[in-house]
Amino acid sequence: MSKVSETSVRVRYGETDQMGFVYYGNYALYLELARTELIRQSAWSYKQLEAEGIQLPVVNVNMKYKKPAVYDDVLHIRTKIIGEINRKICFYSEIFNAQNELLLKGEVELVFMDKHLKKVINCPDIIKEKMKPFQWS
Amino acid sequence: MSKVSETSVRVRYGETDQMGFVYYGNYALYLELARTELIRQSAWSYKQLEAEGIQLPVVNVNMKYKKPAVYDDVLHIRTKIIGEINRKICFYSEIFNAQNELLLKGEVELVFMDKHLKKVINCPDIIKEKMKPFQWS
Amino acid sequence: MSKVSETSVRVRYGETDQMGFVYYGNYALYLELARTELIRQSAWSYKQLEAEGIQLPVVNVNMKYKKPAVYDDVLHIRTKIIGEINRKICFYSEIFNAQNELLLKGEVELVFMDKHLKKVINCPDIIKEKMKPFQWS
Amino acid sequence: MSKVSETSVRVRYGETDQMGFVYYGNYALYLELARTELIRQSAWSYKQLEAEGIQLPVVNVNMKYKKPAVYDDVLHIRTKIIGEINRKICFYSEIFNAQNELLLKGEVELVFMDKHLKKVINCPDIIKEKMKPFQWS
Repeated sequence: MSKVSETSVRVRYGETDQMGFVYYGNYALYLELARTELIRQSAWSYKQLEAEGIQLPVVNVNMKYKKPAVYDDVLHIRTKIIGEINRKICFYSEIFNAQNELLLKGEVELVFMDKHLKKVINCPDIIKEKMKPFQWS
Repeated sequence: MSKVSETSVRVRYGETDQMGFVYYGNYALYLELARTELIRQSAWSYKQLEAEGIQLPVVNVNMKYKKPAVYDDVLHIRTKIIGEINRKICFYSEIFNAQNELLLKGEVELVFMDKHLKKVINCPDIIKEKMKPFQWS
Repeated sequence: MSKVSETSVRVRYGETDQMGFVYYGNYALYLELARTELIRQSAWSYKQLEAEGIQLPVVNVNMKYKKPAVYDDVLHIRTKIIGEINRKICFYSEIFNAQNELLLKGEVELVFMDKHLKKVINCPDIIKEKMKPFQWS
Repeated sequence: MSKVSETSVRVRYGETDQMGFVYYGNYALYLELARTELIRQSAWSYKQLEAEGIQLPVVNVNMKYKKPAVYDDVLHIRTKIIGEINRKICFYSEIFNAQNELLLKGEVELVFMDKHLKKVINCPDIIKEKMKPFQWS
C-alpha cells in the first residue's frame, strides 16, 4: 500500500499579488517544499543528496489552478511519486486550503544529474529503494 | 500572416538558486513580462484592462526546461497566442539565451474574470480584435 | 516583564542564490512572518486588521547580515516591539540558525494607514493594549 | 566631477502584493540590478568578478520607503558609491517613478570576499580605480 507525504505551509504576504491571491509562480515554492518533505520522510534529505554530488534540476512542470490561495491561509499539501524512477522522477501534489477545497494540482518532473560532470545519471538504487513507499504506479 | 511578440530580460542574481541556474519558479516572472509586452504591443495594456474591471488569473501552466539560464544572461522571449480567445486565452512562449539556444517552452492559460463580480466572462470583442494579429490557429 | 515572540522557518531552495546562501532580499519574507506571528500571539491577526480597514505599509528597513543562512536550515527568529506605538510601530528581530549563531539583526518600521482613505492614522488603543506585552522601551 | 549611474526597470505583477504596491522586500532586486549596472558601466561586470574568485555578500541594508511603486511603473534608479572602497563598498540609490517622485532611498553595503577561501579581502586596486568615477566622498 503506497503512502502519501503530507505537509503544510502558511501563505506569506509577499507571496500574494495585487489580485489578492498567491502569485501563480509562487506555487513552485510550495511544491518544492512538499517534495523536500517527501524526500526527508523517505530517510534522507535533498541537502544530503547534493552533498553526495547529485542534483535534481526540474525538466517539466504542470500546474492546474482550481481556486486561489489567499494571505495567511494554512495550505495542506499531499504529495506522491508517480511512474518509474530512473533518470527522471515525477512528483504529483495536490494543495488544499483549510476548508479542504482543492486549490492546485501540480506535477514536477526532475532529472538526476551528476553535480560535477553535469550529466544525467540513473537514480542510485539505494535512493530508489527508500522512495518506493511513496511511489504510485 | 500572424505575428510573434519579442522581448528580452536580463537574469538577476536573486533569481538564481544555489545550483547556479535560474530557479524553476522564477521563469513564471519572465513569461508574465513576455505576455504583458504582447498585450502592450496589441494596443492596450494589462494595467488598463484591470482598470476597466477585467482580471486574468492563470488557470494552467506548463513549462518544459531544456537548458538552464544563468546569472546576467540576456534572455530573448518570443510569444504568441495559440487557439481561440473566448473565456480563456493561451500564451505560448519560447525563451532563448544570447547563443540562441532554446532554454524553455512555456504555455500559460488565463481566464477572463469580472474583477468585481469575480465570475468568468467572455473576452470583450474589442480586445479579441486587437489581439488577433498575434493569434496562431 | 516584556515578552519576545519566537517563531521558526526552514530555508527553501528557491530562497538561496548562486552564492549558496539565502539571497539578501529574502530575509524580508522571514521578518514579515516573524512580525505576523508576534501580532497573532497578541490576540488578533494582521489579516483581521486589514479586514477592519487598517494597512501597515513598511516605511523603513534596516538589516545587518552577520552570517549567511543556507538551504534547509531551520532558522529561529526572536521578535519584539521597540519604542512607542503611535502612527508608527517598529519591530526588532534577530535570526539564529540551529547552532544558535546570530545571522541577522533586522528592524522594520511600519505606519498605520487607513486602507480606504490611504492616510496615516494613530494605532487604535485596543491594538496598542494588546501589543503592550511585546513592547520594550 | 563624480558620476551617477542610471538605469530603469518596469514593475512586474509578481512583484506587487495584495496592498497593490511593490512588496517591500522586492526593492532589494531593484537595488541589485542598479548596482550591477553601475559596475558594468565601470568597465567590468559582477559576473566577471565572481569568475575571478571574488564575491560580494551584502552586510548591511537600509531602505527608506517614501512612496509606493505600483504595477507596470517604469522606475528610474540613480546609483553612486559613497565613502571609501576597501574591504567594504557602499552603494547609495534613489528610485523615482515616471512622475519623478522619489519612492525609495537605499543604501547597500557589501564586503569583498575571496570566493574559495571564504575570507574577507581588500578590494583589488584595479577595481577601485575603475569604480572611482562613481565614488562620492
